[in-house]
Amino acid sequence: MLFALDVMGGDNAPAEPCKGAIIACKKDESLSVALVGMKEAIEPYVEAAPSSVRSRIHIVEAAEVIGMGDNPSASMRSKKNSSLRIAMEMVRSREAIGCISAGNTGAIVAGGVLVVGRIKGIDRPGLAVPIPSLKKTTLLLDVGATVRCKALNLYQFARMGAIYMSSLTGTKNPSVGLFSNGSEDIKGDEVISEAREMLLGSDLNFGGFVEGKDVPVGNTDVVVCDGFTGNALIKFGEGIGELVTNLIRSELKGKILPRIGALLMMPTLKKMAARFEYEENGGSPLLGVDGIVVKAHGNSRDRAIAGALHVASGFARLRGTDLVKESLER
Amino acid sequence: MLFALDVMGGDNAPAEPCKGAIIACKKDESLSVALVGMKEAIEPYVEAAPSSVRSRIHIVEAAEVIGMGDNPSASMRSKKNSSLRIAMEMVRSREAIGCISAGNTGAIVAGGVLVVGRIKGIDRPGLAVPIPSLKKTTLLLDVGATVRCKALNLYQFARMGAIYMSSLTGTKNPSVGLFSNGSEDIKGDEVISEAREMLLGSDLNFGGFVEGKDVPVGNTDVVVCDGFTGNALIKFGEGIGELVTNLIRSELKGKILPRIGALLMMPTLKKMAARFEYEENGGSPLLGVDGIVVKAHGNSRDRAIAGALHVASGFARLRGTDLVKESLER
Repeated sequence: MLFALDVMGGDNAPAEPCKGAIIACKKDESLSVALVGMKEAIEPYVEAAPSSVRSRIHIVEAAEVIGMGDNPSASMRSKKNSSLRIAMEMVRSREAIGCISAGNTGAIVAGGVLVVGRIKGIDRPGLAVPIPSLKKTTLLLDVGATVRCKALNLYQFARMGAIYMSSLTGTKNPSVGLFSNGSEDIKGDEVISEAREMLLGSDLNFGGFVEGKDVPVGNTDVVVCDGFTGNALIKFGEGIGELVTNLIRSELKGKILPRIGALLMMPTLKKMAARFEYEENGGSPLLGVDGIVVKAHGNSRDRAIAGALHVASGFARLRGTDLVKESLER
Repeated sequence: MLFALDVMGGDNAPAEPCKGAIIACKKDESLSVALVGMKEAIEPYVEAAPSSVRSRIHIVEAAEVIGMGDNPSASMRSKKNSSLRIAMEMVRSREAIGCISAGNTGAIVAGGVLVVGRIKGIDRPGLAVPIPSLKKTTLLLDVGATVRCKALNLYQFARMGAIYMSSLTGTKNPSVGLFSNGSEDIKGDEVISEAREMLLGSDLNFGGFVEGKDVPVGNTDVVVCDGFTGNALIKFGEGIGELVTNLIRSELKGKILPRIGALLMMPTLKKMAARFEYEENGGSPLLGVDGIVVKAHGNSRDRAIAGALHVASGFARLRGTDLVKESLER
């Protein structure tokens, strides 16, 4: 199984993506990775790879890079030699089964639609993020691919999210919730009400509305919302995480006993923090495009990239894209 | 200054609202409170009040209660003898300068519009919540009064929020941000773009878009969004708080050193948790109605109710409602 990895995307490019590919190939012998990017920058990492991996990684030259500040659609159209675009072309031509990037989110979404192409019958793609919760991981989508949605978009996100969660966790018939501003049936707006009716009439394991405080509890496998709301939630969650860390740090300053306490608690705090790390979660699939496209967090280190490759290969092995297509035909 | 307090609203009614009124009156000698609710239930608390306070609290009988599960508008219309409705009638008749309730949020919003009435020129009210951040408190509105907004609503929220923050913190010309799914100008939807243009053209200290992760940083005094988004954010924040508490508890189980660590850190953790408590923050004003209406959190204890009364009296002292009216005339 060959995956195209945009090694020029993200804050730690190209070192961490290259190292991540090697970690992933070590773990999974069926995996091959095309490192797409600037040859000279990549070669040292390829040469450093152990022999068990060496034959399964190769470089695909890309002379351009789409930066974090570039306009998504415009750069995807104009930078035809960019690493992200070439990685996506490899998916379109079926040379690669999927592609992974830690780069510009908007460009990944734009490329998913413009280059890889949507699955027939899917109006808009949804970017899904596995988020930590008390009981299990919850898949939240959309987190920014489709800012405002029609009811049909939300409905399709639910279908695709359920299929993806099945492949990720092995859960049969995952539970699906529709995000709203309260759990009562009268909540939401017109679009949300209409989506609720569609979901109630479907064969999905739909449990009704889910509100903000329920998401971290994790009673629901898949939570569906529009891209504006999902984006607001995950970014607010990140911000709260930083706030708590900074508050603890500033409160501990110059205090001896609490500092000793913090040291003793460190293993617990680290274990907890790990649940909130993208490293463990492995990346966000762009669902609804005709091939596997996984976005890794911009600050991903090697383990996170390896995780994203693992997630992508798992979805490929379960024929995730085909399952979405078959589900639409039913 | 007389305020009407709905003592039947909230999880801890009537004990905590009654006690809260006494605390507030002790602190502020200019304050009088009408305890609106069922006489027999309230009397013991009034009798227990110290003599310095006794003359400034009195009971206003209300035979009905609007429950947390009641339909907001319907119950506000039909339960004419409910404590919340009577408290609001007292504001409309100018008998009381404002009212406070920890009860059904939807009913408070409905009553604000139906009973107290909107300020002329304000299309929709906004419920504002002071939320903790690293640098200072940020006022977020709307958090649920107006689920979906027009640009004009968002613009009016910004004006009213700025006036309220001035009265709450003494900040002159508070900074205002418009919540969006990213900080770049191209983000948002049509409504948000239009509101941005209106804010840019105003005399407000408008700093552009604010995204989810910026909110807890607290660089902005007032952050404006529609009620759906604001509701999603504050409830998600509550949920994360519970998740973190539960995770720490479960991680600490049976582990000796980390538990000792937690004990040593307790003062720090408690101080931090206090920043996230509604107790300290004192309630959410419903802005845009022609009188002072403050909602306290449903689980408020006495200190939180006292805080809400304090916030309400501060806004009254600064003639907040008049300032909003004058600002609209300009």
